[in-house]
Amino acid sequence: MCNNCDYTIHGVNHHHGWDRSIPPVETVAPGVSLFFECLDSSGGQLNRDSGVGDIANLSFDRVNPVTGPIYVDGAEPGDILKVEIAAFHPSGWGWTANIPGFGLLADQFTDPALKIWTYDTATMAPALFSDLARVPLKPFAGTIGLAPAEPGPHSIVPPRRMGGNLDIRDLAAGTTLYLPVEVAGALFSIGDTHAAQGDGEVCGTAIESPMNVELKLDLIKQQALPFPRFTTPGPVTRHLDAKGYEATTGIGSDLMSGARDAVSGMIDLLCREHGLSATDAYMLCSVCGDLRISEIVDQPNWVVSFYFPRLVLE
Amino acid sequence: MCNNCDYTIHGVNHHHGWDRSIPPVETVAPGVSLFFECLDSSGGQLNRDSGVGDIANLSFDRVNPVTGPIYVDGAEPGDILKVEIAAFHPSGWGWTANIPGFGLLADQFTDPALKIWTYDTATMAPALFSDLARVPLKPFAGTIGLAPAEPGPHSIVPPRRMGGNLDIRDLAAGTTLYLPVEVAGALFSIGDTHAAQGDGEVCGTAIESPMNVELKLDLIKQQALPFPRFTTPGPVTRHLDAKGYEATTGIGSDLMSGARDAVSGMIDLLCREHGLSATDAYMLCSVCGDLRISEIVDQPNWVVSFYFPRLVLE
Repeated sequence: MCNNCDYTIHGVNHHHGWDRSIPPVETVAPGVSLFFECLDSSGGQLNRDSGVGDIANLSFDRVNPVTGPIYVDGAEPGDILKVEIAAFHPSGWGWTANIPGFGLLADQFTDPALKIWTYDTATMAPALFSDLARVPLKPFAGTIGLAPAEPGPHSIVPPRRMGGNLDIRDLAAGTTLYLPVEVAGALFSIGDTHAAQGDGEVCGTAIESPMNVELKLDLIKQQALPFPRFTTPGPVTRHLDAKGYEATTGIGSDLMSGARDAVSGMIDLLCREHGLSATDAYMLCSVCGDLRISEIVDQPNWVVSFYFPRLVLE
Repeated sequence: MCNNCDYTIHGVNHHHGWDRSIPPVETVAPGVSLFFECLDSSGGQLNRDSGVGDIANLSFDRVNPVTGPIYVDGAEPGDILKVEIAAFHPSGWGWTANIPGFGLLADQFTDPALKIWTYDTATMAPALFSDLARVPLKPFAGTIGLAPAEPGPHSIVPPRRMGGNLDIRDLAAGTTLYLPVEVAGALFSIGDTHAAQGDGEVCGTAIESPMNVELKLDLIKQQALPFPRFTTPGPVTRHLDAKGYEATTGIGSDLMSGARDAVSGMIDLLCREHGLSATDAYMLCSVCGDLRISEIVDQPNWVVSFYFPRLVLE
């Protein structure tokens, strides 16, 4: 619980997908602080005791529930909702899966896989993937957004200009996120909390972990914002970078192919030099490796690089 | 000069473009260290006294000269050339330009622009862009590669699987780069040295700066390597990240559009909140801002983020 928050939004108040017609669960004034209980992205279909067989039974109608929506008094289309992300209260467990049909290399990884993680919420020490790897933790909410102007239901899966399933690793405690408002009241919701993720979330899942979130909502009236933006209070990769990186590249005229080649190259490297299985390497890349665009101007070939932090394997 | 290097390769020994028929300027055994004199990427067409009028007169036949090629005894197709990048000897000056027709936002920035930089080679203190911005330095070689197997001349501009114009910011001192060999002797060349660059090199140029480079060449026999890879000895962004980042995003089904939207958003932000001109903001983004792929799995929309280090403006 949050002693200093103005509102607590319980996890039972969640919804699936975005729709401006979903009734708000709370109406608040700008400037208030809220405490959100967030379910994991399976919506409780997976738990600490789940096995790989449970992946086949996942109902996609129930994935990625978000807690909300919150109606912010005075918010109008053309405003910006300012979200000050204050703190996360992690649960101590999470899961990472390869879900067939989902992920950057879905064509190469067709079998389901599941890793259940546990971690110490007091120390937030790196979580053990196996004897071979330990992953530093940095909690954030994968899905954080507002209702779109367009009426009717919209899938929760793709992010949009009002945010949503952004899966931006650096929306951690202390970060301020700015989202463009498209409907009266903004209709803010949040969920899909992650204990750790790399830039790209390449296998399609992070360390998916139920978690509660403290944040403050405020308004900036009538200012243009084409897409979400955010401000981080300090460095964003110091939990990962102390021992440097192994990096692989993909080079060509298509950024998507470059990204796929870079990640494939890293999986090969981790298997060859560190004895990981290909599926374990793929999931590990998703929770701690970063996709970066090294150059995007040397026509007609771009360089996409995948950075894997060496301390994870040391 | 390098007291401990086995060879010095003078800048006069440079070539334009890649071609396996270019005669080697030196033949060396694996394991030797070399000192390369590298010209700037204009090939001496720009200097400390150049003005924006000189951009229109740039001859593209003379851009991006590379020093070499070096024939490595025993190198054969299917081998890997291991390049241990030991040290850079910067010149103390450089240039950044918007060259019409070149760059991620070439359609929006059609007028030439030129910034001449000076910096202290003893302290390597951040270089002044203007009263408004100081850019931390981290020297590297933008172009580092081998001759391709395919006969005939090949443009120097696009990078390829044997490397070349990779423009990877993190190929700094202490980094080891692995390049796939396609021809006997590998035929290694290097040039296009940069005093600073962000991931993406979004305006098309970095702090282009003549510089000398010490490195060691070695061979790994007959090991598969689809694209270049590298190992960094430590963190890669600590010169930039101490004060955190402003970040903008681009969201949609095309990574290139996402990258363009993210960079456009940052230029707007820098103009509105820090009083920069749009062209100055674009060039500044190129020398210190980073393009990252935040997520590439939430079909059908991907998130590309552009990270601008706040300490540059503080």
